[in-house]
Amino acid sequence: MEIDYKNIKVIGFDADDTLWVNETYFREAELAFASLLSKYETPNKIDQELFKKEIGNLPLYGYGVKAFVLSMVEMALELSNHQVSNKTIEAILNIGKDMLNKPVELLDGVEEVLKSLSKKYRLILATKGDLLDQERKLEKSGLTDYFHHIEVLSDKKEANYSKLLNHLDINPSEFLMIGNSLKSDVLPLVNIKANAIHVPFHTTWAHEQVSEQETNGKAYKTISSLFEVIKLLN
Amino acid sequence: MEIDYKNIKVIGFDADDTLWVNETYFREAELAFASLLSKYETPNKIDQELFKKEIGNLPLYGYGVKAFVLSMVEMALELSNHQVSNKTIEAILNIGKDMLNKPVELLDGVEEVLKSLSKKYRLILATKGDLLDQERKLEKSGLTDYFHHIEVLSDKKEANYSKLLNHLDINPSEFLMIGNSLKSDVLPLVNIKANAIHVPFHTTWAHEQVSEQETNGKAYKTISSLFEVIKLLN
Repeated sequence: MEIDYKNIKVIGFDADDTLWVNETYFREAELAFASLLSKYETPNKIDQELFKKEIGNLPLYGYGVKAFVLSMVEMALELSNHQVSNKTIEAILNIGKDMLNKPVELLDGVEEVLKSLSKKYRLILATKGDLLDQERKLEKSGLTDYFHHIEVLSDKKEANYSKLLNHLDINPSEFLMIGNSLKSDVLPLVNIKANAIHVPFHTTWAHEQVSEQETNGKAYKTISSLFEVIKLLN
Repeated sequence: MEIDYKNIKVIGFDADDTLWVNETYFREAELAFASLLSKYETPNKIDQELFKKEIGNLPLYGYGVKAFVLSMVEMALELSNHQVSNKTIEAILNIGKDMLNKPVELLDGVEEVLKSLSKKYRLILATKGDLLDQERKLEKSGLTDYFHHIEVLSDKKEANYSKLLNHLDINPSEFLMIGNSLKSDVLPLVNIKANAIHVPFHTTWAHEQVSEQETNGKAYKTISSLFEVIKLLN
């Protein structure tokens, strides 16, 4: 089944790793964290335990840098059997502050694509990150004017997108989501009969990975560069 | 100047301390924090320093429980000259988790008022807390169905509300905000020529307090109980 582009009224863009680099910074932070705790465990074990901790805290903390930092602090206490130094805890807090202060590095083609599409469609930023952090990144990116507004979703599941469409007062067929995560930006949309384009990023967080079975027979489009969107939608 | 109620199309409700108890839990958490650090400083000094720390971190962390916990951890390291125990850090993390897990305690009249107004107006929840936390509270409250959607604002200043009205596609005169904070729920609205009703809560966070000078001559309505809204808007 092909996407019927002439129906589209609103286009939602994922932010992190679709418009700008994000996962790369999380990976760097994980490396720094593993190095801080290297006297207690192997990097591999630290990575695995931190991931479990994040997933365990997800229902309570949600997504974003602050949740990540809180999970790192908790993990440091546990992995060290409560032996970790105050200096290490401080260093963990600083990893988070550095992440929040990172400059925004736009991905290829982003500005051209938004410029072109914003003439014809209402564009929104649809993210499950932290609102303040995403607003700050959007401002740093210089892309603010292309977007009608930011939608922060507490998660990106079918129910969240259905609520979003209700809020936007449009039908599923009139909405197109563009993003790097099959799990968050593509499959839930296809499942509620909205449209989705997948633009893979080179790094994907384990939590966002899906099996081939889950994508089997689902109607969405995959493109290798955001530039291709211009041709598809004009 | 009186509010012209017949123009109103959308009513925004603040959440914390307008619909349900919140500040009380922060006060309890601050007391618990001061008690954990009592061997390093007086409760009064700890309170003052924590407040300064929160305000200092506000541009980076924003509002909400996660930001509060991160500030408490940082403060514990500093106040103790990096002598604080791992058990205390753990107890601070648990203060935050307890806050996020608190049951929702509705304020007087909330359900009746929402039930009555939702028949005639589009109601939205407008909060600067954390989206996940607010969604969870809304769900626990049983009030979900009265609201069209939740709007999370990274801050509640004039520019944030102007963006909100633009996003709702309504004029300032068609919007009424109801909340407990003069600084966040009332004055910015009045300043952009929208409408506001102030319902004071018995406890106000220092950061939300305003001087009499700031409210001087501003046109908003103060009521002592949310119940009064029904009479005003029917």
